[in-house]
Amino acid sequence: MSKWDRSAIEELLAFLPCETPAAWLDEAVRQLPLLLMDHANCEKKAASNAMTLMYRYVDRSDLLIKMSQLAREELLHFEQVVNLMRERDIDYERIGPSRYAGALREGMRTDRHGALIDSLIIGAIVEARSCERFYALAPRLDETLAKYYRSLLRSEARHFQDYLSLAHQYAMPGEDVDARVAFYLAREKSLIESPDECFRFHSGVPVAISSGAPTAFGS
Amino acid sequence: MSKWDRSAIEELLAFLPCETPAAWLDEAVRQLPLLLMDHANCEKKAASNAMTLMYRYVDRSDLLIKMSQLAREELLHFEQVVNLMRERDIDYERIGPSRYAGALREGMRTDRHGALIDSLIIGAIVEARSCERFYALAPRLDETLAKYYRSLLRSEARHFQDYLSLAHQYAMPGEDVDARVAFYLAREKSLIESPDECFRFHSGVPVAISSGAPTAFGS
Repeated sequence: MSKWDRSAIEELLAFLPCETPAAWLDEAVRQLPLLLMDHANCEKKAASNAMTLMYRYVDRSDLLIKMSQLAREELLHFEQVVNLMRERDIDYERIGPSRYAGALREGMRTDRHGALIDSLIIGAIVEARSCERFYALAPRLDETLAKYYRSLLRSEARHFQDYLSLAHQYAMPGEDVDARVAFYLAREKSLIESPDECFRFHSGVPVAISSGAPTAFGS
Repeated sequence: MSKWDRSAIEELLAFLPCETPAAWLDEAVRQLPLLLMDHANCEKKAASNAMTLMYRYVDRSDLLIKMSQLAREELLHFEQVVNLMRERDIDYERIGPSRYAGALREGMRTDRHGALIDSLIIGAIVEARSCERFYALAPRLDETLAKYYRSLLRSEARHFQDYLSLAHQYAMPGEDVDARVAFYLAREKSLIESPDECFRFHSGVPVAISSGAPTAFGS
């Protein structure tokens, strides 16, 4: 890993409110086909979310260009995950999303400006968490997948930074972006550390494990 | 233009039910800012449409890969058009779509299989028409824009072919794809050749001209 990568990862880890619980990592290794399927869905959803902003805020050309570039990268990752699934004979089934993104978006401001800033902050958090999970998963996976997940770190870290800079760039004078970031990070921590019945890429502590042996994270 | 490009264009022109009326081309040159704005919207919409198929048909991996690649190219074009607008100080405003795509999609089959084949056929027609309009517009535009529109021909022609091959690939044994293509082409011809009050990239004959001096295309 290059010095640049290490420093980008350290920035991310310092930003996030907690690390991924070991119980989730154990479950991910056991549920590899489901992990890949939901990973493909997350890449597709990340592209869709970027495009939603491209429909709503056509007057912000920096946003349009950055979001379009980001959507293209997410789509490229989508293709790569679909190809990895093909190589492993994993059928891509339609599965529902985790509670994560929906719960993060609850309480989002609905006015045009507030919705923009909140979406950008949530985008930054989701990208940071994804990157942290790729980083934590890599040492537990087979060589091909580990190499692939490490290759995603750089772009995911850049997406995190892009979202966060855009939130600051478009904030109103005097608007407290950091307070809003803190609000969403507190919610994110509880989603990551509380029991979750549904295993997905962004799910909480797997219930079978958390109920059998309560973790330090509580509910 | 290379031999490949010329043959791809000839294939497209033979496929489409009519050429773009001269009255639309005249109006396009007069309404360049609106043309570019709607062009940007069309690229974005083309990417969205491809992604809709990627959500609905996760079990078709060839479709997933082709649609994702196509969406990435459309997004790249979107960025290029936004940059061209920036260079020309054209403000990107929110404008509604033309009647074209909505009217083409009326009468689409709603069952899972029928909707797929019809969407792919409509995708092929829209890409073919876009390509034909870029080709017809280029000689009437300034050098920068002409060069850019010519540069789009190859990818738009490939998108047309990709959509059409996928429609044939996924058709049921004995399903008459050509009859369905003919059904949509007849509708497309009437949308292109009938008067249209709203000028857009895929609009019909501009009303001001068609009402003043009725064209050969009738109403």
